[in-house]
Amino acid sequence: MQHEAAMEHAEALVQDEKWYEVRQLISEWPEPEIADLLFDLPPAHRAILFRLLPHDKATDVFSFLEPELQNHLLTDLTEEETRRLITNLAPDDRTHLLEDLPGEAVQKLLNLLPPEDLWKTRQLLGYPEESVGRLMTPDYVAVRRHWTVSEALKHIRAKGQKAETISTIYVVENRWQFVDAVSLESIVLAQLDTHIEDLLARDLVALSPLADREEAVRTITRYDVFSIPVVDSRNVLLGVVTADDVFDVAEEEATEDFQKGAAVNPLKSSYREASLWELFAKRFPWLLALIGVNLLSSTVIAVYEDLLQTAIALTFFMPLLLGTGGNTGSQAATLVVRALSTGDLELSDWMRAIGKEVMVGLVLAVCMGLATSLLGFWRGDWHLALAVALSMAGIVIWTNLMGTVLPFVLVRMKLDPAVASSPLITSVSDVTGLIIYFLIARAILLG
Amino acid sequence: MQHEAAMEHAEALVQDEKWYEVRQLISEWPEPEIADLLFDLPPAHRAILFRLLPHDKATDVFSFLEPELQNHLLTDLTEEETRRLITNLAPDDRTHLLEDLPGEAVQKLLNLLPPEDLWKTRQLLGYPEESVGRLMTPDYVAVRRHWTVSEALKHIRAKGQKAETISTIYVVENRWQFVDAVSLESIVLAQLDTHIEDLLARDLVALSPLADREEAVRTITRYDVFSIPVVDSRNVLLGVVTADDVFDVAEEEATEDFQKGAAVNPLKSSYREASLWELFAKRFPWLLALIGVNLLSSTVIAVYEDLLQTAIALTFFMPLLLGTGGNTGSQAATLVVRALSTGDLELSDWMRAIGKEVMVGLVLAVCMGLATSLLGFWRGDWHLALAVALSMAGIVIWTNLMGTVLPFVLVRMKLDPAVASSPLITSVSDVTGLIIYFLIARAILLG
Repeated sequence: MQHEAAMEHAEALVQDEKWYEVRQLISEWPEPEIADLLFDLPPAHRAILFRLLPHDKATDVFSFLEPELQNHLLTDLTEEETRRLITNLAPDDRTHLLEDLPGEAVQKLLNLLPPEDLWKTRQLLGYPEESVGRLMTPDYVAVRRHWTVSEALKHIRAKGQKAETISTIYVVENRWQFVDAVSLESIVLAQLDTHIEDLLARDLVALSPLADREEAVRTITRYDVFSIPVVDSRNVLLGVVTADDVFDVAEEEATEDFQKGAAVNPLKSSYREASLWELFAKRFPWLLALIGVNLLSSTVIAVYEDLLQTAIALTFFMPLLLGTGGNTGSQAATLVVRALSTGDLELSDWMRAIGKEVMVGLVLAVCMGLATSLLGFWRGDWHLALAVALSMAGIVIWTNLMGTVLPFVLVRMKLDPAVASSPLITSVSDVTGLIIYFLIARAILLG
Repeated sequence: MQHEAAMEHAEALVQDEKWYEVRQLISEWPEPEIADLLFDLPPAHRAILFRLLPHDKATDVFSFLEPELQNHLLTDLTEEETRRLITNLAPDDRTHLLEDLPGEAVQKLLNLLPPEDLWKTRQLLGYPEESVGRLMTPDYVAVRRHWTVSEALKHIRAKGQKAETISTIYVVENRWQFVDAVSLESIVLAQLDTHIEDLLARDLVALSPLADREEAVRTITRYDVFSIPVVDSRNVLLGVVTADDVFDVAEEEATEDFQKGAAVNPLKSSYREASLWELFAKRFPWLLALIGVNLLSSTVIAVYEDLLQTAIALTFFMPLLLGTGGNTGSQAATLVVRALSTGDLELSDWMRAIGKEVMVGLVLAVCMGLATSLLGFWRGDWHLALAVALSMAGIVIWTNLMGTVLPFVLVRMKLDPAVASSPLITSVSDVTGLIIYFLIARAILLG
């Protein structure tokens, strides 16, 4: 990557409006770094610098910008500049851009596109959000199975300039029915008179355009391929999804899961770009909702107020027991949620996972119970030690089971298991943990 | 993917030891699915079925197996079978396998390798664990800058059969100094008499073999490329890292971060494969350590026992205040940790991030404080309402700031920011939250 010094030098040149020097300086920079430079500039300078980029470079730089910045730039460009930019974007990058714009802006942009591109974009936009259909590109090269390698190469040379990727070549039947894919590598390495048919391995999986884009992530990770064909129900080849786009999706999905796992509704784009209002709005509803759950804990405490007043030492152990309960539940839930989202576990594995966690929970319960009993002896007599040790064991078993089961229940209800966030699990653990604690303590201390 | 019925059919055939039929049935299955079938079979049957696979297919299937299963299979194979298998594995897959085996097994396997492969493997193994050096493959094709496209194609046809990937061709100087990379696509699409030199864009980044493998993930995500060259300090091309391996790394790293984020030390491989003992051992130390932190909370309660006994209503609000504190801190920490690990935030952004979060924290504090004051009026008078509202506001501001700052501090100390897990943040929030609460409550109620 460019040295920070180079970046600062460029910013200083822009500051002084030395446009010619900036242009020279950044002419050999990779596109993502020019995008970074634009990000750091004040809006007025951005548009000027962007106009100074060579046309083909401008399109690439544009596709590396964050959606919000793309949006700002577009408002500064003339209609002609916008048309050129939008037309040159690869169809899937274009879909990505249009998804993030308000409806009227999309309509305006669609009107600027030449009819053929418009058709492609409309087709891609027709599929549900977060579907494979939105990710695919129709710009691939297809060959016939009965062609020879030399015929195929001729076709690839003719059509390849316009394609987004030719690293995988698709083989179709007469009615565009998908047969198999063959890598450009194997075509290049084969004898020129070999038939394409003889290069096929016939073991390639295809996706439906309606499948969730996470399916594309899982398929590409599982089969280690650079692109996946997308076919409709009659096996007609609609487009292909390339690994670089899937890679970005995988990262976005993991980030969304991290955020959900901390009870934050997923941010629209990056943290860096998020406005104060967005950060507030994605967090506040969960904090407020969880107050509702915490209020249940408070109610349990109010119900057992007499018990607490008789034995105030019980308050001492509350943070210990509730803290451990929440931590145990978070551990179990996070392990299961992540395993479910990478495909390591599936819904049908619920018995296996619960069986495993019941065993682990039992062992953890015994160890944590013993540790707590020592603290009980220290603060009181063996009655108290027994009460807190049994409570600890009960709470660990229960919260561990809850953390394991809840994600499966969510998947079964067709919800995202990531909703079983650490804060939610912790809050629910508190309520149930208090009940377990007070019931056991009352039975042993007052019974 | 294969229909579950097909999988069950195959398992039934194995059960009945109808080996010929099984072999027919799975002959066209993709390798990852054969690997899945092996996973589901009892050990004795696994080795038999594995031996029935065609040799080239066996190697691919092997590379898709989980490390533990690879290990089991190896012990069942003869020396000759092992030699063939290990030799046919791509160097980076082989490194991956050898990393997961005990030291003596590695030595035994290394002795089975032909000298040339041994050299490659040793070279890859010499780099630190989780480094780019371990991921790279030396099996690429390099061309000279002054060659024509037709010379290059001839060279690619000659050397390409043995290379792991030829989708990107590397251009080097006389002393193997790295110049640039050029895609096979652009070579195929160019005129045969074009010079390679004229196809270069000269904007490719390279990595050091000593860099952390997360660097490879970030580079490939950022630049949308299929492979990255690895060069030493004198710019000599050592090998290349391909996107499919980086993809697997990215998923593993995200899973590790999820686990750390829930105070679980990263599992060695998948959850599915993890033994009961491993699950216990990765969780127990954290639970025990956090008991230490929770004990501080208990101590704070013990110190303020008199206050609690005078105003037992204060206990009622404890779950509410501490719960919200933990949740707020987890939200902030998770947002910052994930942004740091994807490169969305960098260490130098700390001022920007803290500034943003101070603002968000203030707004959250006001809203949560107001909500809590209503509950205070309901349970008591305006004194109580004021005390709990101010405590809530103070706790939200503090935990939010702590969740934001701690990850940066960890990075600054060269530690993994993911250590700022939800359970750790929650436990520390409890201690500090109690102190804030009791100080404010005493000042207002008894002051």
